[in-house]
Amino acid sequence: MRFDIITCQPDLLESPFSHSILKRAQQKGLVEIHIHDLRQYAVNKHGQIDDYAFGGGAGMVMMIEPIDKCISELQAARKYDAIIYMTPDGQTLNQRIVNQFSLMENVIILCGHYKGVDERVRQHYVTHEISIGDYVLSGGELGAAVLADAIIRIIPGVLNDETSALTDSFQDGLLAPPVYTRPAEYKGLKVPDILMSGDTPKIEQWRFEQAVERTRQRRPDLFEE
Amino acid sequence: MRFDIITCQPDLLESPFSHSILKRAQQKGLVEIHIHDLRQYAVNKHGQIDDYAFGGGAGMVMMIEPIDKCISELQAARKYDAIIYMTPDGQTLNQRIVNQFSLMENVIILCGHYKGVDERVRQHYVTHEISIGDYVLSGGELGAAVLADAIIRIIPGVLNDETSALTDSFQDGLLAPPVYTRPAEYKGLKVPDILMSGDTPKIEQWRFEQAVERTRQRRPDLFEE
Repeated sequence: MRFDIITCQPDLLESPFSHSILKRAQQKGLVEIHIHDLRQYAVNKHGQIDDYAFGGGAGMVMMIEPIDKCISELQAARKYDAIIYMTPDGQTLNQRIVNQFSLMENVIILCGHYKGVDERVRQHYVTHEISIGDYVLSGGELGAAVLADAIIRIIPGVLNDETSALTDSFQDGLLAPPVYTRPAEYKGLKVPDILMSGDTPKIEQWRFEQAVERTRQRRPDLFEE
Repeated sequence: MRFDIITCQPDLLESPFSHSILKRAQQKGLVEIHIHDLRQYAVNKHGQIDDYAFGGGAGMVMMIEPIDKCISELQAARKYDAIIYMTPDGQTLNQRIVNQFSLMENVIILCGHYKGVDERVRQHYVTHEISIGDYVLSGGELGAAVLADAIIRIIPGVLNDETSALTDSFQDGLLAPPVYTRPAEYKGLKVPDILMSGDTPKIEQWRFEQAVERTRQRRPDLFEE
């Protein structure tokens, strides 16, 4: 799967993609991530990519022309399944949407900044508008990193043990059950006896019950979907 | 405001905190961000901080002892308003929660990784469990960066123009209206006439109507809160 991320803050995305699972996925050849600096498509030699909003008001707006140029260049080279704009008023991301994106081959992710992009970009270039949650960030870069991380980790072969992702919260409609590791007792705090029993079927039953109970208490809305 | 972020992947957090608004907030002295490498509190000289789950199953679990040591050291130095654990089964983050956190002085953010942390950490150390959305990431680091970014940008003085944050999506219960910038026409695509009129009261009225209409179409649930 190939990701082309368009941003005016390429430095921000450096470390999330050069460590841990995302790095390994690239090294294994399962994923390609290309970060494009929007300033290279600026409208003048001062590197301008944003301007004041028509009609007045605080905050700068990202211009249509540099974005058009960058997207057009990418589209001339290959076909894209999605041009995703990260924005707080987009569709709220969830695991189901992540799963759908993970089946795509080439995606562009456009990161907004300042007050966002010129509306004409959203109407005429963007195919999917995605929000990672009901809060506002200083730019779309962290959202893009979140979206890419969520997608990449479920691509087959990225995690060493595939069952590890299948038992995650949300994949089976339940939150994950509690987990414990050594020591069995720490400053008087003990691990539940059942987990030390070695009785695998009983342990699996306990985990399922814990997952159901946790979901009922914390996220009863997940049962209604 | 002071953030202490506990992680086993400190490199991952490097670039998000060393650029843009988060960097400026630190330079202005409005925010302190301290990143703590959990491996420095490892249980042995091999740097061990995780172990297999009791009861079996895929994935490693972060041990209680290194986390206890790190948190205890921090708490010995100052009082914390919150010890936040980033986890997909936590309370779903929204702008209201962000606003509440922004009033705190000292917070610890604990990043999970692998299958998460030993349940005893959650029961006995953590005060708030936060999820940035209904999807699973490869670790809590991106979640911690998202939470910190959302909080820091609304701390007074961080953004140059404070009205810029006040007109964001969610702060007034509405999604933001569309924005446009130069050129007024690009490849036949035009900016709405009203925004070129110079009639500020009419423009504000149009923006309000657009915000209401966009919220009605995309997020009618926001009206019900």
